Amino acid sequence: MRPSDRFCDRLLIAQERARSALCVGLDVDPRRLPAGCTTDRRGIERFIRGIVEATDDLVCAYKPNLAFFEAMGSDGYAILQTTLAAIPKGVTTIADGKRGDIGTTAERNVAAIFEQLGFDAMTVNPYQGFDSVQPYIADPARGAFVLCKTSNPGSADFQDLECRDEDTMRPLYEVVARRAVAWNTQGNVGLVVGATYPAQLGEVRALAPDLPILIPGVGTQGGDAEEAVRAGMARNGRLAVVNVSRQVLYASAGPNWQEAARAEAARLRDVMEAATASRARL
Amino acid sequence: MRPSDRFCDRLLIAQERARSALCVGLDVDPRRLPAGCTTDRRGIERFIRGIVEATDDLVCAYKPNLAFFEAMGSDGYAILQTTLAAIPKGVTTIADGKRGDIGTTAERNVAAIFEQLGFDAMTVNPYQGFDSVQPYIADPARGAFVLCKTSNPGSADFQDLECRDEDTMRPLYEVVARRAVAWNTQGNVGLVVGATYPAQLGEVRALAPDLPILIPGVGTQGGDAEEAVRAGMARNGRLAVVNVSRQVLYASAGPNWQEAARAEAARLRDVMEAATASRARL
Repeated sequence: MRPSDRFCDRLLIAQERARSALCVGLDVDPRRLPAGCTTDRRGIERFIRGIVEATDDLVCAYKPNLAFFEAMGSDGYAILQTTLAAIPKGVTTIADGKRGDIGTTAERNVAAIFEQLGFDAMTVNPYQGFDSVQPYIADPARGAFVLCKTSNPGSADFQDLECRDEDTMRPLYEVVARRAVAWNTQGNVGLVVGATYPAQLGEVRALAPDLPILIPGVGTQGGDAEEAVRAGMARNGRLAVVNVSRQVLYASAGPNWQEAARAEAARLRDVMEAATASRARL
Repeated sequence: MRPSDRFCDRLLIAQERARSALCVGLDVDPRRLPAGCTTDRRGIERFIRGIVEATDDLVCAYKPNLAFFEAMGSDGYAILQTTLAAIPKGVTTIADGKRGDIGTTAERNVAAIFEQLGFDAMTVNPYQGFDSVQPYIADPARGAFVLCKTSNPGSADFQDLECRDEDTMRPLYEVVARRAVAWNTQGNVGLVVGATYPAQLGEVRALAPDLPILIPGVGTQGGDAEEAVRAGMARNGRLAVVNVSRQVLYASAGPNWQEAARAEAARLRDVMEAATASRARL
């Protein structure tokens, strides 16, 4: 296997090429389409293609949110295929479905998301344990971002519980981060840590100095993009993947929606790139 | 709201009517269809309708496994619709997708699974905390089975970790069970506990005497149906929902597949009903 076939290496190349930590989340809601896009399949596809065209040189990744496509009903699968076809090779694609299961169910998830749709990575929920994560990381060319400390207030309910792990008390999210590092024998395990918890993001980064971290929660949820990339970057100055969805997708509801999305993506990219450069200079 | 509109009441009625704890898991794999079913949409639908026709008076519920339908590609959604249309009203339908998310994503999950497809319940992963479960239990007519102690060996990795909860050390799955009881203000929260862990199933049942418990892991994974219903039944002698998938679906690969599925479902139903009756007599 060439280095460029490994998931983590490909993500790094995508980030270097676009000089960008920005991932645009495709939470595409037919009820929120801008002027000139109809709410049928044709209009939704037009919107998605328009967003990708307007931003694909500014991002390292796109993250289609599977729930939004499922809610499109019988057209959802075809629209998801169109979406993936519109994304240039070299830009990382992350299926956000928070999957995680065992045996034949996991095997069917992998078939659907990686083999048939061709995603590079997906988000995975670790609650069921290693044998529910392993199938998603069996192929080093495909990555799994394991939920660790999520961006929502309720993440405290279980993720912050102090657990006895190797005779030490640590919060559950830290146990998950440590396990993910151990699981990363093929360079394709990542973590999900919300930008709304910058201190915990820094802690997780210290525990997992080389893993990609997908960072949601910037924008509507209150996280800060610059702080996210500063706290989340790896030793190599990259591998913080900062997701922004609505703030880019719905930057304008008017006929200038493509220009507005591009401007917002460029602004976010530049803010984060400046943070990357200043940190790298330290 | 009439009592019969509440999820838990409807499940109980379904169990009483069929005198059955059996849930048949629809893990439909086109590569495993029996004689006479082609592997295209028509053949898959024929198989599913045939299984439902052969078993619908013997079960309290069907549990379509969403990953299997997703892996069917662009036909998957339509086949899932056909499946739901084939299931008689009054038999509970559980979407097994182990979803769980927040905000607009959860809202889209709910739209897809409950509103559009019309499922009665879904399986939900609690790792993200209460605000990632709440949207799925907002409507008392729809239920959520929250993953608690799953049937796989890896469930020990996190679910068995001893956590500090209200100044007491308890395994994480027990914390989840206690929270689920607290969340159950509308009679529509259930739990998932694997038949492979009968002792823990009994513990969870003691903590949650009135919640429905979905019990996978019987058959291929090694759990015992009789023991599952004995350890899992609620105070009212019901609300253990014991899932069996392959053992029923693929009971025969020959032309007698419908008869074989019915015979296996009847055998399981009767074994579990005998356990229910003997326990109820105690």
